[in-house]
Amino acid sequence: MESGTTKNIRLTITYRGTKYVGWQFQRNGVSIEETLCTAIKTITGEDVTLYGSGRTDSGVHALAQVANFHTASSVPPEKFTPALNAHLPPDIRILVSEAVSADFHSRFSASGKAYRYQIDRGPVASPFYYDYAWHLPEALDEVAMNEAVAHFVGEHDFAAFMATGSKVKDTVRRIHSLDLERRDNLLTLEVRGSGFLYNMVRIIAGTLVAVGQGKLLPDEIPAIITGKDRSQAGITAPAKGLFLAEVTYPST
Amino acid sequence: MESGTTKNIRLTITYRGTKYVGWQFQRNGVSIEETLCTAIKTITGEDVTLYGSGRTDSGVHALAQVANFHTASSVPPEKFTPALNAHLPPDIRILVSEAVSADFHSRFSASGKAYRYQIDRGPVASPFYYDYAWHLPEALDEVAMNEAVAHFVGEHDFAAFMATGSKVKDTVRRIHSLDLERRDNLLTLEVRGSGFLYNMVRIIAGTLVAVGQGKLLPDEIPAIITGKDRSQAGITAPAKGLFLAEVTYPST
Repeated sequence: MESGTTKNIRLTITYRGTKYVGWQFQRNGVSIEETLCTAIKTITGEDVTLYGSGRTDSGVHALAQVANFHTASSVPPEKFTPALNAHLPPDIRILVSEAVSADFHSRFSASGKAYRYQIDRGPVASPFYYDYAWHLPEALDEVAMNEAVAHFVGEHDFAAFMATGSKVKDTVRRIHSLDLERRDNLLTLEVRGSGFLYNMVRIIAGTLVAVGQGKLLPDEIPAIITGKDRSQAGITAPAKGLFLAEVTYPST
Repeated sequence: MESGTTKNIRLTITYRGTKYVGWQFQRNGVSIEETLCTAIKTITGEDVTLYGSGRTDSGVHALAQVANFHTASSVPPEKFTPALNAHLPPDIRILVSEAVSADFHSRFSASGKAYRYQIDRGPVASPFYYDYAWHLPEALDEVAMNEAVAHFVGEHDFAAFMATGSKVKDTVRRIHSLDLERRDNLLTLEVRGSGFLYNMVRIIAGTLVAVGQGKLLPDEIPAIITGKDRSQAGITAPAKGLFLAEVTYPST
């Protein structure tokens, strides 16, 4: 509960995840969350709780992560952008800071998310994509991969596409769209959905690659989904190729 | 002069220039040239002379730099690609290795070059372009910049677009094409020409930005060229936005 002078600040954040242990605070290294909280304390003097729209693993990047925090600071909401950027390292940048209603919560208010997964198809791993893509120089049947994507779209129980050990009970999610785009040597998977299970995009990427390698047929995807058996899907694609591209909210 | 068993090997190389002092050997840090020569020595046992198509400054990147060396090694020419990549850091990659005629010289045989210069137009500097673009968030008149580019195309004495102190006497060069392309927040200058003076692309980029900022009018470019006075052109744009994109040869 917040008083009349307390504000709820929503941040839209972009970051390069390479040097971090991930979004969430961990003892074994520096997290995005901790780095942001330290910068917020420098500005406000407060130890705030930062609510992220979801965690990202070590090496995963964000084009537009969303997080919010409650503050009694008199700093105008939009001024958090330049003030925080002045105290953050260049691999974490605030894109937007704005006041939102008191009951807004980055995670629980979210209506959907978009992710991007990049695959470097060049014969040698490009120095420019080294931290941003999975390098797969071998032949991949991209036509088959494009056939496979349609089977993921819609509402399904994606239990087979969730990291083993994850405790989530309701594994039904809706994928709005899934597209593969090729630009020069970069093969990019763009996926939008209501929400995603832990490692779901990376397992979908790994499964599409298995289709490209001929280890799976596109028409086998529906049975893998209905089987709900993680071992029947493809491998979990490397973290470094994944980008949280957008978090959507009903009002935006 | 080389014996009958000596081969002339041409390498096409891509590198991220951020951590290097530039192409050329220098005492104050690690160069691309030195790193390549060390790897070549590991493979061949020879201290070769590596002839680059031209130098690139510290922070400047290459999508496809070309260099050649003469070797008595029995390593098949195309095998230098995987062999060198196994000994090079991930920010330097060999794309192609091939045998060329004994008189081929990466610099003197070149008929032209292409460069790319990237400007990040986002409101805050993207973590993903931090090492690869000049961040200019302020308003720029991109229509005026597009008007200005045409004045550079053709054969001109580009003395006004050469770094002060450069000792080159013949400052006439031909620009085949110069294009500005906007994709999301990235404004990219693509330039092709017969050859380029020291810092020429970066000074052209700085001059186009001066036009965008309203400090220069597009129609003032011809007088700046004919005036041959470095001080009348724009600033030298930062090295990190520059990419050597291609080196062309008559036979390719």
